[in-house]
Amino acid sequence: MATTDNRDPRVIRTHNDVPAVALRLLLDEGWEAVTPARVATEAGYSRATVYTHWPERVDLLRDAFAQFGEMPHHEANGDAETDLRGELASFCRAMVEHRLDRALATLAERAQTNPEIAPIRDAFVADGERPMRQILPALAEGPAAEAALQMLCGMVTHSVLMHGNPPSDEVLDAAVDIVMRGLAQRD
Amino acid sequence: MATTDNRDPRVIRTHNDVPAVALRLLLDEGWEAVTPARVATEAGYSRATVYTHWPERVDLLRDAFAQFGEMPHHEANGDAETDLRGELASFCRAMVEHRLDRALATLAERAQTNPEIAPIRDAFVADGERPMRQILPALAEGPAAEAALQMLCGMVTHSVLMHGNPPSDEVLDAAVDIVMRGLAQRD
Repeated sequence: MATTDNRDPRVIRTHNDVPAVALRLLLDEGWEAVTPARVATEAGYSRATVYTHWPERVDLLRDAFAQFGEMPHHEANGDAETDLRGELASFCRAMVEHRLDRALATLAERAQTNPEIAPIRDAFVADGERPMRQILPALAEGPAAEAALQMLCGMVTHSVLMHGNPPSDEVLDAAVDIVMRGLAQRD
Repeated sequence: MATTDNRDPRVIRTHNDVPAVALRLLLDEGWEAVTPARVATEAGYSRATVYTHWPERVDLLRDAFAQFGEMPHHEANGDAETDLRGELASFCRAMVEHRLDRALATLAERAQTNPEIAPIRDAFVADGERPMRQILPALAEGPAAEAALQMLCGMVTHSVLMHGNPPSDEVLDAAVDIVMRGLAQRD
């Protein structure tokens, strides 16, 4: 990708460093740690620099989530059942290993009281769901496909955010079995 | 229920008023509004009173969630499929009408960084899931029952917390169809 970026290299560096620090603070300590003063100190910039580039906290959050980067996903092999199982396992791993649990919990909570956060959450969730949305058309369409997606992703988010742990392998397997059989048996 | 409460009636009143105000602030404005100073002002008590009864913020949160009271649930009629549909519809309504979305988002987010919140979340979630856990044994057991529960509840929490809306009636219906057929077709 040879896009030309004509900005001052120092500006580019600031634009990468500061959100990376904001994301680390968010995942390590939670949203309340992500203040311009704290981020400036940790990133080694002045508070004025942080305020100039990110006048609103929501701007900093948006750029911090962009730093989350590409989540590891299962590499699709074309068999829908295998791909569903692989993608769900990747989702569970990202919850633990990439602290996606904290990222999603923060976005869910912040979006409740700050309407500006909802589009950041929506974009982040859409990115995460994309691979599963590519697998499902081989199995179902319309409300059945949407139900399967919401149930399978939802099992993982509910288990992690409401129970504190991803579902066990046995429960994941049973869920895919139920969905595969339930979809195959439709009228 | 004729339990005898020998505490000073003023103490009992404080113990009900203050958590009710804390819960209202939490649902209206989010966790950051629930400071002892703000709660004291809104409830018409001194800050000292609030600090005396709830030395830690987590104590106040625990009592606030106890004020959430009994969520409206579907009245079971004994047909598992009808009961599942009814219970899911009640869950969706509570998300919107009782602002269960905000309650769950706050608990999920706070539990990430404060281990003392996890037991409050767990008790609240267990209460909410109880009716569905009573319906499922008629349909499945073991990992299949747990998978069905996590998928059906998860569809609602994922949809509300990650997409900002409960699932549509069409998607809810499709989900119950998939689960009923998937469970019926098990080996």
